[in-house]
Amino acid sequence: MAETGKRRISILGSTGSIGVNTLDVVSQLGGRDAFDVVAITGNANVTLLAEQAIACGAALAVTADDAHYDALKSALSGTGIEVAAGRAALIEAGARPSDLVMAAIVGTAGLAPTLAAAERGADIALANKECLVSAGELFVRAVTEGGGRLIPVDSEHSAIFQSLEDDQHHAVERIVLTASGGPFRTWSREEMAGVTAEVARAHPNWSMGLKISIGSASMFNKALEIIEAKHLFNIRPDQIEVIVHPQSIIHSMVGYQDGSVIAQLGSPDMRTAIGYALTYPERPKLNVERLDFAKLARLDFEAPDEVRFPALRLARTALERGGAQGAIMNAAEEMAFHAFCAGRIGFLTMADVVEDVMDAMMGHAATTMDAVFAADAEARRRADEIIDKRELAA
Amino acid sequence: MAETGKRRISILGSTGSIGVNTLDVVSQLGGRDAFDVVAITGNANVTLLAEQAIACGAALAVTADDAHYDALKSALSGTGIEVAAGRAALIEAGARPSDLVMAAIVGTAGLAPTLAAAERGADIALANKECLVSAGELFVRAVTEGGGRLIPVDSEHSAIFQSLEDDQHHAVERIVLTASGGPFRTWSREEMAGVTAEVARAHPNWSMGLKISIGSASMFNKALEIIEAKHLFNIRPDQIEVIVHPQSIIHSMVGYQDGSVIAQLGSPDMRTAIGYALTYPERPKLNVERLDFAKLARLDFEAPDEVRFPALRLARTALERGGAQGAIMNAAEEMAFHAFCAGRIGFLTMADVVEDVMDAMMGHAATTMDAVFAADAEARRRADEIIDKRELAA
Repeated sequence: MAETGKRRISILGSTGSIGVNTLDVVSQLGGRDAFDVVAITGNANVTLLAEQAIACGAALAVTADDAHYDALKSALSGTGIEVAAGRAALIEAGARPSDLVMAAIVGTAGLAPTLAAAERGADIALANKECLVSAGELFVRAVTEGGGRLIPVDSEHSAIFQSLEDDQHHAVERIVLTASGGPFRTWSREEMAGVTAEVARAHPNWSMGLKISIGSASMFNKALEIIEAKHLFNIRPDQIEVIVHPQSIIHSMVGYQDGSVIAQLGSPDMRTAIGYALTYPERPKLNVERLDFAKLARLDFEAPDEVRFPALRLARTALERGGAQGAIMNAAEEMAFHAFCAGRIGFLTMADVVEDVMDAMMGHAATTMDAVFAADAEARRRADEIIDKRELAA
Repeated sequence: MAETGKRRISILGSTGSIGVNTLDVVSQLGGRDAFDVVAITGNANVTLLAEQAIACGAALAVTADDAHYDALKSALSGTGIEVAAGRAALIEAGARPSDLVMAAIVGTAGLAPTLAAAERGADIALANKECLVSAGELFVRAVTEGGGRLIPVDSEHSAIFQSLEDDQHHAVERIVLTASGGPFRTWSREEMAGVTAEVARAHPNWSMGLKISIGSASMFNKALEIIEAKHLFNIRPDQIEVIVHPQSIIHSMVGYQDGSVIAQLGSPDMRTAIGYALTYPERPKLNVERLDFAKLARLDFEAPDEVRFPALRLARTALERGGAQGAIMNAAEEMAFHAFCAGRIGFLTMADVVEDVMDAMMGHAATTMDAVFAADAEARRRADEIIDKRELAA
């Protein structure tokens, strides 16, 4: 805590969906009366970034791209808000003293600034996927050695975190990760083969960006969440179950050795998990929709189909193999996603590309950040080659 | 803890359903290697009581009824197990030093021995309903002043207890008590009017005694659970919601001010709640059926109908009125239950009898145990009169 008694926070990736919701929660919880915003960072949306910096009274505003420095500088001139740009400035935003860092930069760009925050001992509210998927062991070690807390923001992992009793980790038998199943839950492989990105993005419950929507349709999101859960909760892969739950009301569950299952439920509103991360272990009063069970009427469950959705199987393979397989899977999936959106490969081919790259890159280690970045880069290069070949063959 | 490191427990009501399951859990958790059984008590089933005492190595075995003393004495002769009988001996079983007392005597007979255990500061694993329904304030005060912990054993209240975070009671917005809805969930009042006890006892999920089965069919069980929840969790009655959930898999839930709902789920097996109570805050490894969500397939919810099931409304009335209304409602309901089982009154008349007695006895206090017993006795007398009149009129 700062001497003022306010919680000092930085928001890495403030202009994205998580960032915007984080600032909404900060405002609901008292805004400047409750929080000192040390730094916020964004990318190309300089107008929003500047507006946010002024509204929350950030001390520092950073754009990831040097090309936007002048625009940001000009938008914030006369405000007294410090302005910076580029990769080093992003890391500085994470490194600057604060109590908690919301890590919501998308992609591998989020790794270095989040690591900087972890190493100095800040509590990390984690919304960046790559920290755990690509560099899980390194990242968890950095948090542990730094002495801060790691609080997941993703709705599923937040649910697990909330359902885990502090002193009963030894009594956990399994984690039950719920999955909406996406728009193709009931489709055959033949039907999925022909879909376009426009069709695939229509998520049944959450309003999300294109990347996450397609990842939900292919269940690659859920697959990567298995890897995240493994690192977050220090649990064996075979203790992680996935259950398809189309309504997305039970956000995930923890099963204990006494037969009890503890679950966290809520409306599909990421502000609950964000609020929990910002004030943990306190539960803040939030203006989000309450569940009305009579209105919900029913919750459904079904086993996931790893034949129609091979991503789940690939995640387990990545965990078995260890090393840089998480980083490789993640990088290959991003390339496959872009190729799918560009109409270069079909929906089902995404998993084929990922599997080919994973199989081709066994034995890569992830013992240093450089090794992780190298594996990530090589996986992208190999995915690109495979996509080229697939495209020519089609 | 005893000097041996074993947990010293007494089981009040060891021959009933909760008692038998408690001894099963004790056995699963190591039996005599883990527990010193200080005392067990039963009633007419002397054969079972003696068998249990020998099997668990109880130091004292008590039958509630003096008439069974000789039979129990003879069954345990030569074992070295102390034998006693009668009301004072039941109280002695609760009062004798132990770490935890399983309070599973059914009815008002359970009040005095459980109070004796609470007053001396034992942890109370509470399965007796009357302690909270009839004497809630007195009992909770006795536990608080004694310094022991109060751990509910009823599946719904155990679920709430498990879903309540220790330091976040101030952040609780509501408790959501689930109800199976019983066998008449979808029946009209006209259909319910003609049912017999034999029909009403067929509970959809749990295998239970006649009293609890009929109470489930009329929702009087759930009504009394509202009163119990109010006292156990020190919450306003309007913060207690009831939701009908026919599968009885979600055993109950807690809603927080951040929009989160935490739930405890499990198979319909009371041993999970018993095990939790015996070893709290540890979650013991138990051989009970695990939930298989794909097999469950769906969970349903619907609003309870207080017109078809007036018991719920009566519980809220009892809480609003306070004083001895809980004891009066409970006593009148027991009389109405017996009259229904004897074919003297119809299924729907049970609630009419209870309401008439409650209305006729407003202003009775429950500030002492004597006052509680007096209100209980008067309620039974008045219920009897009303039942006589109803029977003559029919």
